[in-house]
Amino acid sequence: MNGDSSMSADVVRHLNDTQEDALADLFDFLRIPSVSADSAFRADMQRCARFVAESMQRAGLTTEIVPTPGHPIVLGERCEDPQLPTVLIYGHYDVQPPDPLDEWTSAPFDPVIRDEKIYARGATDDKGQLYTHLRSLQAWMTVAGKLPVNVRFLVEGEEEVGSDHLDRFLEEHRDRLQADVAVISDTSQYGDGIPAITYGLRGIVAAEVHLRGPSQDLHSGIYGGSIANPATALARLCGGLLDADGRVRIPGFYDDVLPVSDAERAAFAELPFSEAEFLKETGCQDVWGEAGWSTLERRWIRPTCDINGMVSGYTGEGPKTIIPAWARAKITCRLVPGQQPDRILDALEQFLKDRCPPGLTLTFTRYHGCPAFVLDPTGPWVTAACRAVEEAFGTPPVFIREGGSIPVVMSFRQILDVDTLLLGWGRNSDNLHSPDEHLHVVDFHRGTTASALLWERLRLTADSAS
Amino acid sequence: MNGDSSMSADVVRHLNDTQEDALADLFDFLRIPSVSADSAFRADMQRCARFVAESMQRAGLTTEIVPTPGHPIVLGERCEDPQLPTVLIYGHYDVQPPDPLDEWTSAPFDPVIRDEKIYARGATDDKGQLYTHLRSLQAWMTVAGKLPVNVRFLVEGEEEVGSDHLDRFLEEHRDRLQADVAVISDTSQYGDGIPAITYGLRGIVAAEVHLRGPSQDLHSGIYGGSIANPATALARLCGGLLDADGRVRIPGFYDDVLPVSDAERAAFAELPFSEAEFLKETGCQDVWGEAGWSTLERRWIRPTCDINGMVSGYTGEGPKTIIPAWARAKITCRLVPGQQPDRILDALEQFLKDRCPPGLTLTFTRYHGCPAFVLDPTGPWVTAACRAVEEAFGTPPVFIREGGSIPVVMSFRQILDVDTLLLGWGRNSDNLHSPDEHLHVVDFHRGTTASALLWERLRLTADSAS
Repeated sequence: MNGDSSMSADVVRHLNDTQEDALADLFDFLRIPSVSADSAFRADMQRCARFVAESMQRAGLTTEIVPTPGHPIVLGERCEDPQLPTVLIYGHYDVQPPDPLDEWTSAPFDPVIRDEKIYARGATDDKGQLYTHLRSLQAWMTVAGKLPVNVRFLVEGEEEVGSDHLDRFLEEHRDRLQADVAVISDTSQYGDGIPAITYGLRGIVAAEVHLRGPSQDLHSGIYGGSIANPATALARLCGGLLDADGRVRIPGFYDDVLPVSDAERAAFAELPFSEAEFLKETGCQDVWGEAGWSTLERRWIRPTCDINGMVSGYTGEGPKTIIPAWARAKITCRLVPGQQPDRILDALEQFLKDRCPPGLTLTFTRYHGCPAFVLDPTGPWVTAACRAVEEAFGTPPVFIREGGSIPVVMSFRQILDVDTLLLGWGRNSDNLHSPDEHLHVVDFHRGTTASALLWERLRLTADSAS
Repeated sequence: MNGDSSMSADVVRHLNDTQEDALADLFDFLRIPSVSADSAFRADMQRCARFVAESMQRAGLTTEIVPTPGHPIVLGERCEDPQLPTVLIYGHYDVQPPDPLDEWTSAPFDPVIRDEKIYARGATDDKGQLYTHLRSLQAWMTVAGKLPVNVRFLVEGEEEVGSDHLDRFLEEHRDRLQADVAVISDTSQYGDGIPAITYGLRGIVAAEVHLRGPSQDLHSGIYGGSIANPATALARLCGGLLDADGRVRIPGFYDDVLPVSDAERAAFAELPFSEAEFLKETGCQDVWGEAGWSTLERRWIRPTCDINGMVSGYTGEGPKTIIPAWARAKITCRLVPGQQPDRILDALEQFLKDRCPPGLTLTFTRYHGCPAFVLDPTGPWVTAACRAVEEAFGTPPVFIREGGSIPVVMSFRQILDVDTLLLGWGRNSDNLHSPDEHLHVVDFHRGTTASALLWERLRLTADSAS
């Protein structure tokens, strides 16, 4: 034990000595415009998958780039010793589209360090965080010539477009992916200098509604009032999703929501939370949401419904007197434990159809969905992770939930029967999915250290359990 | 009397004998690409103004081409005898842009006759219709050496871009434009072979509402439910504009609406109207509008509110899990007699502001507006026009309203205190504003004849009134 403990100190020392190399390598990763949503970047996606595979190989893993009907999945594995615990590490190499480009201070695929932050699309979501695990494994191989745990490493390229082919892949490769615990770094710290272990996630369903009316845009004077206007109707359909108190009005939406204990709500209430900081972070004038719940609760334990985009008719300068031929909106609902994605989508579709006036054709398209996730925060793997994080960050992590969804966490539970440690090194203020996405340099290095220590802690946990 | 009546027969005979000349001259007019929206055609606009002035001169009018900050206005006048009635004729020499060019069967500025229709941009809107009046006045001068009425002729070049400089021009030239009645041919017949006198137009107000929320697009998982979403809020604001029965829900919207008599509604009900044809024309599956009113009534005598365009957040393919930073909608209301544009805009703005959730900044931008127009269809000038049209078309015109707005008609009433006869020779199916715009040759000749007879009828009306 002691020998390994000093070994992990050597690994950490090595990581500290090679920080510049790590950044240079990460920058190569960030330079690849791996935008999964846009087929123009298909070749870059392939190139990015190869980059990931080569990084795994440098950590002693055997790798395979597995094609899917979409973008390839990169698999890596190393069985050090069947007696050791097996960890399944997950990440994604695809990134959100960088639009709107003119709102970036520096080019999204030309990483730079400014004010001790790494600026690039994917800096925090998820290349920068994923890379901490690649780097920590490489350090173990360099320093110790072996890993403290057996590793299965799965990195996909379709997380930002719904991971359409992941579940099928998990089902087909179930045997190769058996593990004792999974690790994902695709969440955030709770606040600056307050690392967190995320033990709950909201689920999600996503859909698009398209209304078609006249065969082409019509003169609003000649025809206005005599036919259903797709834009006005879409506003009516979507405008009814929330009531004035912020409650979702879809019938049955709250029926299956599981209650949250008073103790848990009390723990949330004790977390430091500054509304002023929150408003500064979001750039909003005020908070607003479901009556009767705090801002953290509205984000973590309450389901909601948002319009993510909407377009119809004339959107240029000045007026144009038309009735648009069609209108379209994108809608997502965030789910909490108990809610079933299919039931929610059924209810949403019915809600919209019930309110659609005659003469319009409504098309409802379903995208990806997954239920919410929640984990016992007192289990042994969580405790091991807690210690690694505390050692790397110099302070114990807090236990939080997150408002976002990581569908793979539910897939791991449902298909592989494995629970996931969600260890986020970045921050909510890192502009995920937005212009000027970034990752603090210090978070990158602390994350890499925590990752290196984690493998050792997981081994020790398995030791003491056996 | 009899002498003049036989004189008008001579004028009509002359017009019939010179139809080919009239077409050749109209074609010269149509060949000038007078696209007011595009500064590339500025020289053509000047050339077109000169063409109009020369045409007026051939009718014995003295002319002036008056510069404006935009395109020039052509003024013509002839005072035959102070005892005669004075007619103000209005038209516009500018045309819509011809795009999309590849959807034209023949070039838009190379007029041709196909299937007894004149194909060209401006054939019906408004050069072809305007030209009937230029031609009929020329014929009177040729045959009789004088006009039956005094004429003020105003032809502008900015109708298709909002007539920005017209009202100021009317105010500055009020004295030169005094008239007993105005005549405009920029509307349509009611149907094939059913000429119409349009005695009512809806008014319009136009506005834009812009909601700003977070300083940039935010992750809908991390923040969803805790801040007001501009897209969801905009849908809520705009979705409330109409109720399920198609009534506008803006408080006070209907307060000033003047009632329409049962007799007028009965007359509308007697007009031939095919819902199947209407659906074919619009490409809609069904009609829809305010409960309790027919399709024609919904278009002509009921006010309404339409969203003309709407945009927010992500509008590309697939889902994107964001809360948009802002959302924007363009709104127009069509007004009926009694409604005041400013009051309606005030009420609309208040309605939107009252429904805006905390945390969002609402900006309301007002565009142009004008009240509705309605004329007593039994008045002497209308009766005179009715006889001229009946004689030229061989069938009496029907009395209709239109759903669109012709702001100049309201400007004439408000600034010059003169009412307008709206006499449309073309058809709604003439592809106004679209590729393959055309005017039936027969409509052009009938319109020219009706115009020639109109001047005589207006003189007789004034005679009998005095």
